[in-house]
Amino acid sequence: MPESMERKFILGVDIGGTKIAAAIATICGEIVVRRRNPTQAQSGTDAVIHNILATMEETIASAKINPSQLLGIGIAVAGIVDGDNGKVIFSPNLPDWHEIPLENIVQQRFRVPVYMGNDASIAALGEWHFGLKRGVSNLIYVTISTGIGGGIIASGKLYTGACGAAGEIGHMIIDVNGPLCSCGNGGCWEALASGTALAREAAKQIAEGAETSIAELTGGDISKIDARVVFLAAKQGDELAKELISRLGYYFGIGLVNLVNIFNPELILLGGGVAKMGNLLFQPAIKVVRERAFSALANTVEIQPAILGDDSGVLGAVAFVLEHSA
Amino acid sequence: MPESMERKFILGVDIGGTKIAAAIATICGEIVVRRRNPTQAQSGTDAVIHNILATMEETIASAKINPSQLLGIGIAVAGIVDGDNGKVIFSPNLPDWHEIPLENIVQQRFRVPVYMGNDASIAALGEWHFGLKRGVSNLIYVTISTGIGGGIIASGKLYTGACGAAGEIGHMIIDVNGPLCSCGNGGCWEALASGTALAREAAKQIAEGAETSIAELTGGDISKIDARVVFLAAKQGDELAKELISRLGYYFGIGLVNLVNIFNPELILLGGGVAKMGNLLFQPAIKVVRERAFSALANTVEIQPAILGDDSGVLGAVAFVLEHSA
Repeated sequence: MPESMERKFILGVDIGGTKIAAAIATICGEIVVRRRNPTQAQSGTDAVIHNILATMEETIASAKINPSQLLGIGIAVAGIVDGDNGKVIFSPNLPDWHEIPLENIVQQRFRVPVYMGNDASIAALGEWHFGLKRGVSNLIYVTISTGIGGGIIASGKLYTGACGAAGEIGHMIIDVNGPLCSCGNGGCWEALASGTALAREAAKQIAEGAETSIAELTGGDISKIDARVVFLAAKQGDELAKELISRLGYYFGIGLVNLVNIFNPELILLGGGVAKMGNLLFQPAIKVVRERAFSALANTVEIQPAILGDDSGVLGAVAFVLEHSA
Repeated sequence: MPESMERKFILGVDIGGTKIAAAIATICGEIVVRRRNPTQAQSGTDAVIHNILATMEETIASAKINPSQLLGIGIAVAGIVDGDNGKVIFSPNLPDWHEIPLENIVQQRFRVPVYMGNDASIAALGEWHFGLKRGVSNLIYVTISTGIGGGIIASGKLYTGACGAAGEIGHMIIDVNGPLCSCGNGGCWEALASGTALAREAAKQIAEGAETSIAELTGGDISKIDARVVFLAAKQGDELAKELISRLGYYFGIGLVNLVNIFNPELILLGGGVAKMGNLLFQPAIKVVRERAFSALANTVEIQPAILGDDSGVLGAVAFVLEHSA
């Protein structure tokens, strides 16, 4: 490592729909300070950009460093990011944002290199750099929450595709005649195996008169049912909740089968809020992989929970700067 | 290029279920001689190995060179190839073959480096090296014939995964409740969008009394209907044949949507016997991609017929040797 890198820090920023998370870390991925502020996505593009810049300044100040001590700033954003031109093309978390040149805006403020990418790709890189200390070259990071996203490490390198938008695995069609997806199409993996799909199925079955305690947990308000509530009911022994999560696991496993057959990865890491369900979700999913993926490939892959948890975004952004500075 | 490479040749071999194709080429991919012999797959493993070695010797002799003038031998085999250990794990074309150390057998005979890989991966490499003279870094080669296979060029490199078996894109599930596939599972892309699927649907509709001239082309023998016959009927104006190919194109397009959303490639190349149907198949497929893939990604990708045709295997095997010798 060149001496000049040794005294340097990296600012990693994860821009979500509800909060902006930022951290100053060393080049070894040790977090020095963390900050979290509301995104206020509904306040419009200018307000969000202001909040991002303010959070960055606050984080740098808390670490008692100058921007000139930064090796760079990494930014993770959900959606389609044009990494070559440093623009957010489209983000489900930031509905007003179209072609926003965020890289340039941040670069002009802090006068250090800025690298922006898709949040799931960046989280994959974070898990690969800092989550595991093993010689894995081919890794798929799958994040399952209200949607499904993914990041791909191929042949020991982050794979981002022609315009930085690779990894939209949640919009892989697994049921050509399946339910409508948030993307406007039908039968996407996300439409069948996300937290949103779980909540939708629970609400549907309750509306059809199924016997369950799920709705009691939201005071009878079906519209408030989400994946967390169904999980809570399952932990309390609710049969319908357990069955719905098992079914979710089945569909989640179908998408994993596809990833195993396409990528022949050594490792699949599962992150995101719904992954916190653990074995209730993982066991039926892994069963499907064992049954339906090619056996030589199914025997090669390890499927495990991701390691970095809520830090995967900021640490991924730190790794993203390192990847570009190498 | 080192001077020692300039006078060298490469032997590329493509082992199919019915024939073994071999060619001696220069390192620029110019074919000096070609040979083709029957595989005789039904005669057992030893006979096939004998035929492979004999074809190699014959091809080298025809080129009037010595094995010592070979930079290496590249071998393409359908199925799952363990590239690290030089073994054919499983091949649909060679049903008796399990864990056959073909690389070692060939290396011992000719005393030059031998590299073996999956045929579709190798064809992708051939198309990338010799088919196009452009700066494409992310390319998916899709071969559609009785089955569907694929090869992946990711970030300017052949992607083969953890054990050399990546690219089983034909066994991506696109219809979780769909028809049985040759792999034993249901709803694979191959089960809905291959030549076999087309023939199956034609036979089914004829058995159900559909009005069509397809069966006339096989003298009324429904069991002899294959993709080629349906294509012939379509070219002669048969409405059912045209409708069946259009439907095939729709399902073929669904798989392409998934590849576009997952890989964000610059280029998808379509090869294999069924790809010879051209626009009759491509137009409905590309329509689905434009409608159902993310627009930023659909606008980035070019979908074109592959270029090398029947030489994609042998020229890919030549490129595979170059890739390892670089």
